Amino acid sequence: MLLKGNAIVGQSGGPTAAINATLSGVIRGAMASDAIPTIYGAFNGVEGMLADTICNLSEVFANEADLRVLEATPAAALGSCRRKLPKLDDAEGAVIYEQLLTFFKKHDIRYFFYIGGNDSMDTVAKLTAWLADKDWEMRVMGVPKTIDNDLVGTDHTPGFGSAAKYIAASMQEIIRDTAVYTMKAVTIVEIMGRDAGWLTASAALTRKVCGVAPDLVYLPERVFDYDRFYADVRAALEVHPNVVVAVSEGIKLADGHYVGEGSQSGAVDVFGHRYLSGTGKTLEMAVKAEIGCKVRSVELNILQRCASHIASGADISESVRVGRAAVENAVGGLSGKMMCFIRREGDYYVDIQPGDIAKIANMIREVPDEFINAEGNNITDAGIDYLLPLIQGECDIPYENGLPKHFVIPR
Amino acid sequence: MLLKGNAIVGQSGGPTAAINATLSGVIRGAMASDAIPTIYGAFNGVEGMLADTICNLSEVFANEADLRVLEATPAAALGSCRRKLPKLDDAEGAVIYEQLLTFFKKHDIRYFFYIGGNDSMDTVAKLTAWLADKDWEMRVMGVPKTIDNDLVGTDHTPGFGSAAKYIAASMQEIIRDTAVYTMKAVTIVEIMGRDAGWLTASAALTRKVCGVAPDLVYLPERVFDYDRFYADVRAALEVHPNVVVAVSEGIKLADGHYVGEGSQSGAVDVFGHRYLSGTGKTLEMAVKAEIGCKVRSVELNILQRCASHIASGADISESVRVGRAAVENAVGGLSGKMMCFIRREGDYYVDIQPGDIAKIANMIREVPDEFINAEGNNITDAGIDYLLPLIQGECDIPYENGLPKHFVIPR
Repeated sequence: MLLKGNAIVGQSGGPTAAINATLSGVIRGAMASDAIPTIYGAFNGVEGMLADTICNLSEVFANEADLRVLEATPAAALGSCRRKLPKLDDAEGAVIYEQLLTFFKKHDIRYFFYIGGNDSMDTVAKLTAWLADKDWEMRVMGVPKTIDNDLVGTDHTPGFGSAAKYIAASMQEIIRDTAVYTMKAVTIVEIMGRDAGWLTASAALTRKVCGVAPDLVYLPERVFDYDRFYADVRAALEVHPNVVVAVSEGIKLADGHYVGEGSQSGAVDVFGHRYLSGTGKTLEMAVKAEIGCKVRSVELNILQRCASHIASGADISESVRVGRAAVENAVGGLSGKMMCFIRREGDYYVDIQPGDIAKIANMIREVPDEFINAEGNNITDAGIDYLLPLIQGECDIPYENGLPKHFVIPR
Repeated sequence: MLLKGNAIVGQSGGPTAAINATLSGVIRGAMASDAIPTIYGAFNGVEGMLADTICNLSEVFANEADLRVLEATPAAALGSCRRKLPKLDDAEGAVIYEQLLTFFKKHDIRYFFYIGGNDSMDTVAKLTAWLADKDWEMRVMGVPKTIDNDLVGTDHTPGFGSAAKYIAASMQEIIRDTAVYTMKAVTIVEIMGRDAGWLTASAALTRKVCGVAPDLVYLPERVFDYDRFYADVRAALEVHPNVVVAVSEGIKLADGHYVGEGSQSGAVDVFGHRYLSGTGKTLEMAVKAEIGCKVRSVELNILQRCASHIASGADISESVRVGRAAVENAVGGLSGKMMCFIRREGDYYVDIQPGDIAKIANMIREVPDEFINAEGNNITDAGIDYLLPLIQGECDIPYENGLPKHFVIPR
């Protein structure tokens, strides 16, 4: 039987260039459904539901053109949070769940869509379990997003393709930039990814597309060894004078320590504090000391997760589709699921299917062995073939007065 | 009388997103001129003329469509150099000048166009003076480029507008990214500019265009004071939880030391410029120690000078125009000049005129007082009004397989 009632949507975890496209998809899906009279937005995820700080998205997006601007807006238009719901058997926690139920009843909310990463899927699973024996029929659906691409159960994650496109495009520009001088020089580009090397791997896309590529690519999936690294860099310098290295922030040594931790040794700032730099800076100093040529490190930093201006067309359209599919599946009767991308054989296309959160949440999907070369210092053609469809297509970015136009949801 | 002979063009100094557009303009101008049978390119600037490593650009760009791809390619397609010509009264130097003259005679070169910054204009001036009493009539013309916008005698420099557009667009994205959480946090964005704050000032463009802006903007034109900085940040944190600070790499303390020096060795480049890179990181650590909230620093690094994918339409079209104008003025009889932009009153438009290099070279044009607020921590509306026309318009970027297509001149 059709469950009629309002819907609420929230965003959680780190920003991406595509999380607002998914929000748009949820709004589009809700607006198109006879079951949902009003779609609300919770400011700052679960926090907004606990504080009753919400907005009426059916009114905010009465004009469809605004949804298109929203789809080109980076970060989380509803704000985000990092709050995890308490365990179900936690006495203190019960208060939180009761508070949420009161909130749902007050606004006649029968559908809750949560766009986020691992923590958000955990929230979806817990809330679904807690609601099971309550006097309030309700459906909860998780929609994944993370630039890290490390969620299990989905071919890839919404948001990853846009970050990958930014990284590959920036990598090409960095290689052109470093190639102008004839002097031997090493440029180390630090890319996000604490536990998995998907983003760093995407720097190698340039090899197939642009005819230039980083000479060396190091992922957290392989133990990092300084001696092998120096040998790799020296060998690359023999081939051409401008060596470019892509490295994940999360690479670790054999003893389990992050490479980025090493920079604490010795160096101090003007205040006498230990100099805490990142992985790229640590390797920059190491190459300078060991090899002695000119070295520079570039940290792509938060730009790689919010660069909507060069978002992937494939990523944005899939992100809208997955939000819409979440609504359709919930209205169709499902609850407690995460929407997943299933890649078809042959020409690239993804089907969108609900997945079992219990098999998904709190696990890390690493870059598989067949995508990493035997030397552990570059990406195989199989890896590039997997990544390439995800960066295809350019978005029609709305510009106003010389800069991209973003949509701001009024508070 | 019309001086007939071949032309050569070279690129020098740091890469920009527009230096290849100027190269295209020179090639277009030469191809359109009856005086110039062949336009050559010197690989790596003056180095290529001394080593006789050149290419025939009339042949490379026989297809006009390739010039359009060149205009969307960052960095220096001919390669760059940092070589300065010796002084005219230098005995050893005479050998270099004679070597250049032999090269010009060998290839029947009567026109030399040098695209570069201050050091390249110095080369143009010296070579013009040295050639004056030689038996080889020749015209030498400088075409400016620098993302730093710090050349005297021109309203702005080719390459600056594209860097400014990238910086402002990235600044808007960073502000959206940092705004998703409710926790107090400071984000410090370090922007290039050793001696002048033009690039950092362009971060403030978002205020007029996007309705959000960095809370604080610090330029090298004002002495940096830690106590005032802490007070500024504390006051900004009272207004909203996510404070964003734009800061030039070149800000200095009252004692003349760079803020970033604390974390650098004091290494200098061949011109004696001090290498800088640690300003944002230094301030990050300072805020963490003094205020104690969450702090992050982001260094835009070389991406800001090579991000052709979001180049300014105004900058690219002006950069082509100025290259072409250099050829026209040289064929018309001028030599030893730098091409300058003169901004008209009223609706934005620049005229292109030759300027006197002696009045231009080796001087720094700083951001004027009227563009900096009284507190020395932000940009005035007058400053924004100057900057805004320079980032207008988007380029039609050619994409291939998901990434921007660049033109590579075969060696």
